[in-house]
Amino acid sequence: MKGPAPLEALTAALRRLPGVGARTAQRFAYHLLQHDREGAALLSRALGEAVERIRHCARCNTFTELEICETCASPRRDSSLLCVVETPADQLMVEQTMSFPGLYFVLMGRLSPLDGIGPRQIGLERLLERASDPALREVILATNFTQEGEATAHYIGELLRARGIRVSRLARGVPVGSELEYVDPSTIAQALRDRRPVSG
Amino acid sequence: MKGPAPLEALTAALRRLPGVGARTAQRFAYHLLQHDREGAALLSRALGEAVERIRHCARCNTFTELEICETCASPRRDSSLLCVVETPADQLMVEQTMSFPGLYFVLMGRLSPLDGIGPRQIGLERLLERASDPALREVILATNFTQEGEATAHYIGELLRARGIRVSRLARGVPVGSELEYVDPSTIAQALRDRRPVSG
Repeated sequence: MKGPAPLEALTAALRRLPGVGARTAQRFAYHLLQHDREGAALLSRALGEAVERIRHCARCNTFTELEICETCASPRRDSSLLCVVETPADQLMVEQTMSFPGLYFVLMGRLSPLDGIGPRQIGLERLLERASDPALREVILATNFTQEGEATAHYIGELLRARGIRVSRLARGVPVGSELEYVDPSTIAQALRDRRPVSG
Repeated sequence: MKGPAPLEALTAALRRLPGVGARTAQRFAYHLLQHDREGAALLSRALGEAVERIRHCARCNTFTELEICETCASPRRDSSLLCVVETPADQLMVEQTMSFPGLYFVLMGRLSPLDGIGPRQIGLERLLERASDPALREVILATNFTQEGEATAHYIGELLRARGIRVSRLARGVPVGSELEYVDPSTIAQALRDRRPVSG
């Protein structure tokens, strides 16, 4: 005994979502068909529209409906600074600080050789091309401070420096507002190594 | 700064899946657009087809493409036995035992007053109508042995017995193949109360 074909097909399609196994897919399918058919129809249309309309910005690689995204096209951004982030979510976090006037390059991932994600998969060729813009003074590497993010920053840093481009990395240290008692030792060690002179 | 509208719409639609919050929805959306556009298109079509073609069996309430599902329509099933389960997944588990020749009624849920799921939400009126079939000799309550499943079985049992219908419940006890040492005390207590005479 199996379920009706459209239900089986829906469950199979839901399993393509990352981290969603057979039981979760089945729970999603039952929920939508039993309790939220409107949500199912909405999701169907949203997927179709996104696939059709969303592409990558030709300059920064982020998701956009345009050839060049609004940020890259803005005349108010400082085109001498380029901040490299892993995802659009990271870009959004940097934007929310309201302290970065420059432009972005979104890798849409990070180097992760074990998962088969190499330089080609995260569009490093496009980054190198972008970084050859003579208006650029500095590239700020803002990949995550995870092992993979650090490795990605290191790899990109080497490539860019070899081309004579000035590269920096976000400062590491104790987070603002935190108590030393609750900060992990490696963060404190890093903050000690990178300690700053106090003027006064 | 926000993402492009079709991406925002997709993330919002994905949040309607049960247990999926803002970050998971974003991760799903990024994954589909970045790594699996084919999967996104597939899911879009599967959702559309399922919403259009899947309905509830007029007799047993399970998901089907037909007016009456294949199980209910089968002349080989014993129409004097009706097994009440919570979900199509539970029905499938009972079928896999190959030891139940009768028919089913699928509640598509369980009573859960705190979540606003009352008798109307799980289609009890339809069950009562179905159970008034004179061909029926016995209704077997196979809701789950959770608090909510037990409460649902109790409530349905009272209703059916008040109509003079014979009602039974799946036996509770020690699972086949298990060692007493690893069985929870309330299961052992139940197995003691429901102990069976040994003929020899």
